[in-house]
Amino acid sequence: MFALAEYTTRLEKIKKRMVDEGVDVLLISNPSNMYYLTNYSAWSFYVHQMMVVTLEDAQPLWIGRQMDASGVAKTTWLDEHHIIAYPDFYVQSKERHPIDFVANILTEIGQSSRTIGIEMDVHYFTALCYERLKKGLPNAKFKDTSSLVNMVRLIKSNQEIKYMKRAGKIVETAMNAAYDCVQIGVRECDVAAAIYHAQIKGTPEYGGDYTSIVPMLPTSQNTSSPHITWTDNKYEQGDFLTIEIAGAYKRYHAPMARTMAIGQAKEEVKELSKVVQEGIEATLEVIKPGMKAEEVERIWSKTIGKYGHRKSSRLGYSVGLSFPPDWGEHTVSFRPGDDSVLQPNMTFHLMPGIWYSDYGVEITETIRITETGVELLTNFPRDLYEKPILGILPDEHTS
Amino acid sequence: MFALAEYTTRLEKIKKRMVDEGVDVLLISNPSNMYYLTNYSAWSFYVHQMMVVTLEDAQPLWIGRQMDASGVAKTTWLDEHHIIAYPDFYVQSKERHPIDFVANILTEIGQSSRTIGIEMDVHYFTALCYERLKKGLPNAKFKDTSSLVNMVRLIKSNQEIKYMKRAGKIVETAMNAAYDCVQIGVRECDVAAAIYHAQIKGTPEYGGDYTSIVPMLPTSQNTSSPHITWTDNKYEQGDFLTIEIAGAYKRYHAPMARTMAIGQAKEEVKELSKVVQEGIEATLEVIKPGMKAEEVERIWSKTIGKYGHRKSSRLGYSVGLSFPPDWGEHTVSFRPGDDSVLQPNMTFHLMPGIWYSDYGVEITETIRITETGVELLTNFPRDLYEKPILGILPDEHTS
Repeated sequence: MFALAEYTTRLEKIKKRMVDEGVDVLLISNPSNMYYLTNYSAWSFYVHQMMVVTLEDAQPLWIGRQMDASGVAKTTWLDEHHIIAYPDFYVQSKERHPIDFVANILTEIGQSSRTIGIEMDVHYFTALCYERLKKGLPNAKFKDTSSLVNMVRLIKSNQEIKYMKRAGKIVETAMNAAYDCVQIGVRECDVAAAIYHAQIKGTPEYGGDYTSIVPMLPTSQNTSSPHITWTDNKYEQGDFLTIEIAGAYKRYHAPMARTMAIGQAKEEVKELSKVVQEGIEATLEVIKPGMKAEEVERIWSKTIGKYGHRKSSRLGYSVGLSFPPDWGEHTVSFRPGDDSVLQPNMTFHLMPGIWYSDYGVEITETIRITETGVELLTNFPRDLYEKPILGILPDEHTS
Repeated sequence: MFALAEYTTRLEKIKKRMVDEGVDVLLISNPSNMYYLTNYSAWSFYVHQMMVVTLEDAQPLWIGRQMDASGVAKTTWLDEHHIIAYPDFYVQSKERHPIDFVANILTEIGQSSRTIGIEMDVHYFTALCYERLKKGLPNAKFKDTSSLVNMVRLIKSNQEIKYMKRAGKIVETAMNAAYDCVQIGVRECDVAAAIYHAQIKGTPEYGGDYTSIVPMLPTSQNTSSPHITWTDNKYEQGDFLTIEIAGAYKRYHAPMARTMAIGQAKEEVKELSKVVQEGIEATLEVIKPGMKAEEVERIWSKTIGKYGHRKSSRLGYSVGLSFPPDWGEHTVSFRPGDDSVLQPNMTFHLMPGIWYSDYGVEITETIRITETGVELLTNFPRDLYEKPILGILPDEHTS
């Protein structure tokens, strides 16, 4: 847990934005935002729960399922008056909906006729949540504040940066575990298992947390599709793969991707890897505070364009604390049209993946904007890794 | 992938329900339902994507992000005419929303004025998705079909049962890994790492898949809150813990929870474990097809009630294939008021966890309703496990 002062500072920044947006009450469904405000990290977001911030109250109010209430009391700074539980018969019921309960509480505490900010495009605020809320609070006004808290999360505190650097160390050990494990005859799931073990064990000094996206390690032709996970197929001579993973420490992430081949890589993969590396290097040389997000992408595009390559997807996005299903913060992206200005202690997943119809290459970095330029949060060679083939092939599954 | 005939059978059952519900077009946002229909399993659900079933078309239509389209082509039975991609500038944009694109496609294919079923309370169909859809299709009628596909998933095919039994074998190895690893001086994250390694590696015959909920292993006082994950604290003499995990094989789950102590358990934990075990046994003796879901809960409540115990949360729920954040199917629950009739090849997580303010006990099973009774999908002792304490204590982090 962070010091109480850090949570109250965060809350003050959020309230300031609420005033700017003309919102009296803020309803938070995004578990990342709940954690940011209170340290609440239990896997209870698969049922509806809500945090309520009002301008008047010095603490957010948590409303959730009965069996989760004691976890809120034990792991957050909220006092018992700010933890309200709904009975279990609200869970996944055809007759009752947890948001009806939330609406009743808002009415009881005198917030039913105010302007209420809601996270309209957040995975955990469903279409039905909104319908029930409107029905339960007919006199309220609603405003979309999907990224209000996310925008406050954009600039990290020093302690947050420290956590992300720890995550960076963890992702290095996990990528090394993958490099060590991949071999002809080894199954994709064995490599995924080695990655997971390293991610969660962490280092001797600090343990790892689960990452908000699972390891993605498509092989050969499937590298054209970056979000494929793994199978239990065995690697064969000539296979190549992209590995996109993160390290996580107390929910803070440092993602990283690399590309590797078993034995010598195909020429086209080698060539594309070199172009991607040159593109990253050119980009890292120029990134600094004051620059616009879209300018970062322009440098990249120009560099790879010299070789006839083009990337149609964004070059990166802000990253930090998160919960599944995404480790991105949904705020700033490196892409045309995003004129957000880079500031110190913003952190990004610089994501130069290129995916063609039959193969792809991903070599990525997690970066921090410094006072004068940019810092990498991991320290790992970017070259395409060609794994030496063992002389003796394992003839079956190995431990 | 299942045989094509299994997918077309599933699609026919879904269309039949669409007719019954008066729905011409079904929009599917739930990744579990997408996978059920097509085998599409990539981790792309963190951006908006949609599957469209129309009564006329012999295949569902996938609409999603450009970089994911090739993965759909490579891993599903959909032909190229049923894979439509939106450009990357729709992703997490303030100006554009992927559902605008979906609405345009529905208009182009002549479905804009029909009755459209939508999954109103599914994690991946946000409030904003619904608002944009209504705006984009002003002449359509909408109907909530949140559980239409889920209800078809309720009764498993023999191949699905086979997959769940494989998942059952995997969760046994993962629980054994946890039992082996827990010791004084070992960190919670080390145990979580051992669990993950076993879950993903699977068995020599088949590999494991990621589970839709991460391992939850609260310690001592935190056992009162079942959804707490882990820390990097070291176990101490006198600690006890609940471990709730699953095995997964090709997205099919077999969850299982056990309770253990380091050395001798406290009397109250021992006593509650015995009561829970007696409750499970009494329940398993009577479950059979034709019974109502609520009757299962009644038997359990009566059994533990003899000892003065009471569980206020549901006793279990249907389980099978799933994607994060939940492995439950959101259909049938063992609780008062659920009068669903049990049928052969329904599968449930029988979930007798009891959580008091300072401690909790969880001992659970994944079960299949058979023609005459019930079958366990795992084979693992249910007793409270008291881990012998090592004579020599490790004085630091061990590998």
